Amino acid sequence: MAVYTEVGDEELESFLAGYDIGPLLSCKGIAEGVENSNFLLHTGAGFFILTLYEKRVAEADLPFFLGLMDHLVERGITCPRPVHDRTGRALGRLAGRPAVIVTFLDGMSVRRPDAKHCSAVGEALALLHRGGKSFSIERRNALSLDAWPVLFRQAEARADGVLPGLAVAVADEISYLEGRWPRGLPSGVIHADLFPDNVFFLSGKLSGLIDFYFACNDFFAYDLAICLNAWCFEQDASFNITKGMAMLAGYNRVRKLTGEEIEALPVLARGAALRFLLTRLVDWLNVPEGALVKPKDPIEYVKKMRFHQHVTGARDYGLLA
Amino acid sequence: MAVYTEVGDEELESFLAGYDIGPLLSCKGIAEGVENSNFLLHTGAGFFILTLYEKRVAEADLPFFLGLMDHLVERGITCPRPVHDRTGRALGRLAGRPAVIVTFLDGMSVRRPDAKHCSAVGEALALLHRGGKSFSIERRNALSLDAWPVLFRQAEARADGVLPGLAVAVADEISYLEGRWPRGLPSGVIHADLFPDNVFFLSGKLSGLIDFYFACNDFFAYDLAICLNAWCFEQDASFNITKGMAMLAGYNRVRKLTGEEIEALPVLARGAALRFLLTRLVDWLNVPEGALVKPKDPIEYVKKMRFHQHVTGARDYGLLA
Repeated sequence: MAVYTEVGDEELESFLAGYDIGPLLSCKGIAEGVENSNFLLHTGAGFFILTLYEKRVAEADLPFFLGLMDHLVERGITCPRPVHDRTGRALGRLAGRPAVIVTFLDGMSVRRPDAKHCSAVGEALALLHRGGKSFSIERRNALSLDAWPVLFRQAEARADGVLPGLAVAVADEISYLEGRWPRGLPSGVIHADLFPDNVFFLSGKLSGLIDFYFACNDFFAYDLAICLNAWCFEQDASFNITKGMAMLAGYNRVRKLTGEEIEALPVLARGAALRFLLTRLVDWLNVPEGALVKPKDPIEYVKKMRFHQHVTGARDYGLLA
Repeated sequence: MAVYTEVGDEELESFLAGYDIGPLLSCKGIAEGVENSNFLLHTGAGFFILTLYEKRVAEADLPFFLGLMDHLVERGITCPRPVHDRTGRALGRLAGRPAVIVTFLDGMSVRRPDAKHCSAVGEALALLHRGGKSFSIERRNALSLDAWPVLFRQAEARADGVLPGLAVAVADEISYLEGRWPRGLPSGVIHADLFPDNVFFLSGKLSGLIDFYFACNDFFAYDLAICLNAWCFEQDASFNITKGMAMLAGYNRVRKLTGEEIEALPVLARGAALRFLLTRLVDWLNVPEGALVKPKDPIEYVKKMRFHQHVTGARDYGLLA
């Protein structure tokens, strides 16, 4: 849940006067998004989400994120669309923070995804990769291979307190991945955080994607590996190959994976597991006093990493030849 | 902010199947209300608020609260209206908790009320008192005179740690009020918590009242005293007599205060200040580990109590003869 910044009624009204969305009728803080403050706005023109960007989102990245949402909506991907003010700008300023209004998107995230949801997510991810192709701005992945040793140094000394042996396991995994990380795979704009929280469904059908604040340029197959981790494991961290199969087939229906991507999938899945293991570990060890957000458990991703370490090929994820 | 209970998409859908408000389109936790978990629902029939009652609201009191809202709406008071399910019941059960769906109310609470807002609140309070008259259920005020010593005992030992001398000041105030608390004043249903958070405005006009979870039967003038405390003091705890005057005149326009009520107003205002001082003090001293809600400062109400201790009559609040 997340409302880090309170917005006064007067400053909100004067902010909205710059937009052509009618008078303000209601504004409620909503418990969505971990990085930002979010409000549900009702105005004369309907319902919208107002986001205030807190310190974890770099202001310099906002034109990429907002431009990407505009770009994807224009290409038929259902995601929130930034509302532009009367001067044409999507990015404003409110309560001392960068602020954006986006359209309200119906739909619910699923708590227990089944194979059909995984299939739909695979398809949507491939459509996203295709839709992002002509987007002109680039953003490098700030949480990839070169970032992992940096994150690890912030957690190394206390890692074994979370799980005995974790520091060595992570150090070994980083060396392993540094030696084998693929190069030159098909790449472009990836979502990089397409967890169940960020996918909406309506009556069992995928209805929209949200939260593009980790989007960046990287290998398409790495994005797919993130989704395999996020959607196809059970609560007990066992891999559900039926879900994996559904996701991979869904992806392949829209964009066929190349031989190199298929070969790289196990390494990419290990990297994807390590990336979330590390950010969760750092967050876990650095919960501020009186934090409003409960950090996510890093152990879940230790277990996923260990699964991938025993995988022998993409077949183990359910990829049919 | 408040979402204490997570609700799964599947259990929510089956809960909503009992209501005639169309299919579920969206559900977002909202940061409103300190005592309960609240969600904004979008369904085929529009927008609603879903409330799950957490432990601080006694389930036995819910028929009073919900019946009161129905009763007031029928009498033209704008407040959330409980949605009744297909069997006619307003009170349901979801995620192991009592649960209610109410209509969504437009409007914004004001952060810095001016005299016009205070006038409108005075008027609305009197209309509420009039509207509640024929309501058949009763609920005694669980936070009045007889509750204050009980609350004080929970805080006494540590009160001086919050403010030196506070324990004695509160003990003295309780004795004072016990000796002088009025009897037999006009009474009926009061809101008992009509703070700025709980009053909505649209374009400067009062558009609705929310949060009836402290409503009970008590003196009407005590409710007015709570509002004087909540609306007519400045940030520095100085009393703004222009606002007081506006509120009292607004109230008097709809329901004329009797001579006894006017005479009792200073004592009632002291009691109203002590009531919030005590509940805030207890909350302040009992913040649970990892609490999601920042407790409100009890000192604000110490200052208000001290102001009322020097008041000589209702004239000091701005009541014109």
